Amino acid sequence: MSSSHRLAPVSLGELFNAVQKKLPASVHATLCGSPDIPISAIAPLELAPPASIAFVSNVKYESLIDSTTADCLIVSPALGKRAKSRGACIEASDPYLFFAVLTQWWRARQRVGLESGVHASAVVDPTASIAATATVGPLAVIGAYAEVGEYARIDAHACLEAHAHIGANTHICSQVVVGFDCTVGQRCVVHAGVVIGADGFGFAQHAGEWVKIEQLGAVLIGDDVEIGANTCIDRGALGDTVIGNGVKLDNLVQIGHNVHVGEHTAMAGCVGVAGSARIGAHCTVGGGAIVLGHLTLVDNVHISAASVVMRSINKPGVYTGVFPLDNNSAWEKNAVTLKQLHSLRDRLRTLEKAVSCG
Amino acid sequence: MSSSHRLAPVSLGELFNAVQKKLPASVHATLCGSPDIPISAIAPLELAPPASIAFVSNVKYESLIDSTTADCLIVSPALGKRAKSRGACIEASDPYLFFAVLTQWWRARQRVGLESGVHASAVVDPTASIAATATVGPLAVIGAYAEVGEYARIDAHACLEAHAHIGANTHICSQVVVGFDCTVGQRCVVHAGVVIGADGFGFAQHAGEWVKIEQLGAVLIGDDVEIGANTCIDRGALGDTVIGNGVKLDNLVQIGHNVHVGEHTAMAGCVGVAGSARIGAHCTVGGGAIVLGHLTLVDNVHISAASVVMRSINKPGVYTGVFPLDNNSAWEKNAVTLKQLHSLRDRLRTLEKAVSCG
Amino acid sequence: MSSSHRLAPVSLGELFNAVQKKLPASVHATLCGSPDIPISAIAPLELAPPASIAFVSNVKYESLIDSTTADCLIVSPALGKRAKSRGACIEASDPYLFFAVLTQWWRARQRVGLESGVHASAVVDPTASIAATATVGPLAVIGAYAEVGEYARIDAHACLEAHAHIGANTHICSQVVVGFDCTVGQRCVVHAGVVIGADGFGFAQHAGEWVKIEQLGAVLIGDDVEIGANTCIDRGALGDTVIGNGVKLDNLVQIGHNVHVGEHTAMAGCVGVAGSARIGAHCTVGGGAIVLGHLTLVDNVHISAASVVMRSINKPGVYTGVFPLDNNSAWEKNAVTLKQLHSLRDRLRTLEKAVSCG
Repeated sequence: MSSSHRLAPVSLGELFNAVQKKLPASVHATLCGSPDIPISAIAPLELAPPASIAFVSNVKYESLIDSTTADCLIVSPALGKRAKSRGACIEASDPYLFFAVLTQWWRARQRVGLESGVHASAVVDPTASIAATATVGPLAVIGAYAEVGEYARIDAHACLEAHAHIGANTHICSQVVVGFDCTVGQRCVVHAGVVIGADGFGFAQHAGEWVKIEQLGAVLIGDDVEIGANTCIDRGALGDTVIGNGVKLDNLVQIGHNVHVGEHTAMAGCVGVAGSARIGAHCTVGGGAIVLGHLTLVDNVHISAASVVMRSINKPGVYTGVFPLDNNSAWEKNAVTLKQLHSLRDRLRTLEKAVSCG
Repeated sequence: MSSSHRLAPVSLGELFNAVQKKLPASVHATLCGSPDIPISAIAPLELAPPASIAFVSNVKYESLIDSTTADCLIVSPALGKRAKSRGACIEASDPYLFFAVLTQWWRARQRVGLESGVHASAVVDPTASIAATATVGPLAVIGAYAEVGEYARIDAHACLEAHAHIGANTHICSQVVVGFDCTVGQRCVVHAGVVIGADGFGFAQHAGEWVKIEQLGAVLIGDDVEIGANTCIDRGALGDTVIGNGVKLDNLVQIGHNVHVGEHTAMAGCVGVAGSARIGAHCTVGGGAIVLGHLTLVDNVHISAASVVMRSINKPGVYTGVFPLDNNSAWEKNAVTLKQLHSLRDRLRTLEKAVSCG
Repeated sequence: MSSSHRLAPVSLGELFNAVQKKLPASVHATLCGSPDIPISAIAPLELAPPASIAFVSNVKYESLIDSTTADCLIVSPALGKRAKSRGACIEASDPYLFFAVLTQWWRARQRVGLESGVHASAVVDPTASIAATATVGPLAVIGAYAEVGEYARIDAHACLEAHAHIGANTHICSQVVVGFDCTVGQRCVVHAGVVIGADGFGFAQHAGEWVKIEQLGAVLIGDDVEIGANTCIDRGALGDTVIGNGVKLDNLVQIGHNVHVGEHTAMAGCVGVAGSARIGAHCTVGGGAIVLGHLTLVDNVHISAASVVMRSINKPGVYTGVFPLDNNSAWEKNAVTLKQLHSLRDRLRTLEKAVSCG
């Protein structure tokens, strides 16, 4: 397991108080057991080392409560009694949220050492503006008139092109490119290898050849957005490509030019959204799904993994379109038959008429 | 909106003359209205700021002509009368092409400031050959015997490995890798994060393990090719992987080893082409489509988005294979039934015989 | 063709002896013909330049044996007679494996010139540990307490974050990021643009927004693993993401957090494996396939290209789920009918009852 969560132990009481302070007011949590228990790792239930804390949110894993070697369990009220019978526990009205906030506090403890300032090897244009509390890593490139906000962190080999703007407390990881004129909001995380602001895919056809339409827009990313590794978000053709506040994109996602993604929408890995699509707020798009261009999805639409959206969706709900997996020989038979499906329907109709007439 | 198309205003007459000079002879355009109107932005029809020019190619958007605040409209002859009735317009036999050439001229005006030369922080092998008119950005790496042509532009953190060759007027964006021995032609654009010349995926099996086949070929990219961000083009196993002139690849496309892509073929985002496939000229491949290995597609084949090509295609046309999206509960019913499709066909046959005999 | 396999000629005898020494004992090979024939290229059968060696493993290509201009052919015993009748040949019990080992020996001849040591422009933390025989390329960044093993090679712009560990003889290509605490084993090849150790995609939902779960695990990669360009492997949430020995991943593959990939499993390009999936050993996953999260695939499961795995697979075998490609108009008819499939089945049942009763 990673060394990074093996920190100096903290007492369970200190941990509990620190997390509770950061919980939303609507979430209630109670510590049952000694606050002096030392905790030095957050662990999966089934692999908990000594001095660790683990969580069970799903009743499915209830049976592991008795066998886990964790010293403290984070549980829902429904599991509280069983957890208490074995030792210390934190009973929370939303144990998964308690766990999430705990991981944030834990990671923050590890980051204490990071010093602000610009590494001597970074190449910073004299017209760029970098907050004194920001950190710029080795061999980063900061272009003309680029701006880096307070407490922002720009890692090794990242490249901010001219007029790029990075908001406060945003973390740009290694080898990210933020293209000229593009904006990333506050408290964002942009993972390694992301390309923001490459040209959208726009060409006019003339005499069998493609004539480039220069992409004159930019990318505008809101606050609290997370973007996964090697994901690409293209600049708009004339207007901007817009990613709303709180959006979460996983790795290797492709967002075409002029796309708008509504607030708090999440997309899993390998999703492709073609140009000028408008995705609503609070949507989810499963891994490998494709959304064609110029479509509109209203708020609260949920697309299953690997499904293909070929028409606009005007009604919230869950939508799916996946060929079911089968063993290969069964698939071959059904796939061949599928090509006759329309004619099978016609034969069925004919037969229905014959039988009803007969 | 991006600051980059807010340039100092130009007169409509100067704009028109400049674009007309670059239009193919077969395209006709006429300016109707005062050549003195100042233009400082190219804008989308529905969001046009003052002093802007917009275009309408699609009759679908005709209704926006009266309400747009653009100072000049680029229109087809069919829409000329309506456009003239509201103000200045450019009537073009191919308005989309006029618009494309306009965006090129506009972007060229912005690029005036770029100075040629090698940035002091770039690491250039003494045996490399870089044209005096080329530009090499900060922290780029140019390997042994690499060649960079006239007016080529190599951006920050790009890496040209040994014997890589970049043609004249080609733009290699940030953090592109052009592998050893690979060639990129003239007037190409290679967007950020592209990897040209990684090893193809070739292994022999022996005793349940994979034995590497070293990939001894290279990648050969023609002229006027555009390659989208984070796309990968693998080097050939023995011969070369070949991308023809005028090919356009979008972001996150995967081109396997030994693939040949014919001239002026375009592929949208997230397409995967497996090893040794031969794609013809003037083909299009929609986003997320997969082409299996060792297949041949003739010229003028068009594959719909997210379709899977499992056999060679010998006839031009449009080909599709996508499970239609449905609400999830309807999909579940149909997907389950799909596994019985072959037996349904058999039952239908039996029934047909019964009825015809009966 | 690439210049890199046009080396100074070697005699066929020297080549044969060198390869034979590296073959597994179970593979037998015999040289028929003069050992003095000079060989300066390994070539495809149909494009063999003078002084080249080629291989034919597939009886399908037998007809090319007479027409090829290669000076020596590597063939199976079944083709030995025919090959000998035209000139020199190497008869091998496994000609494809002989060819694989030959390419390895050939490539090794080209690498002779590479000097070990750390390039002056690399930025190496004073606490990092780099073996004296390792090579660190220009502008690479090696973080605090990172370790680079004997004969390892770290190319230009690669970034090893704090506590990253690279095993002996491993090749980290340009612009790879190996995240903090992550480990890559021995004799691995990690191609350009790969991101190892970005955060897994983990969020708790609260009041319609996503609350980040910090990813506290790491990535643990075994020995003899190859990872294709721009592939991403996320760090675990609490435990580690684990890639077994001998695994081969192609380009643009996404491996979610906590995934375990068993030994000697291979995945083609554009595959996505969602979080916490467990893939067995000796599996293959075809290009563009998607494996959903929290599933288990036993050993020796083979998923066809572009198929979607939505349930665990407990039995070895070949599994497929792809909508068959058709010309677009035929597809449209069948796709529309597919939405009625469940009701067609019901109608068929009704009809069956009517007929059997009638």
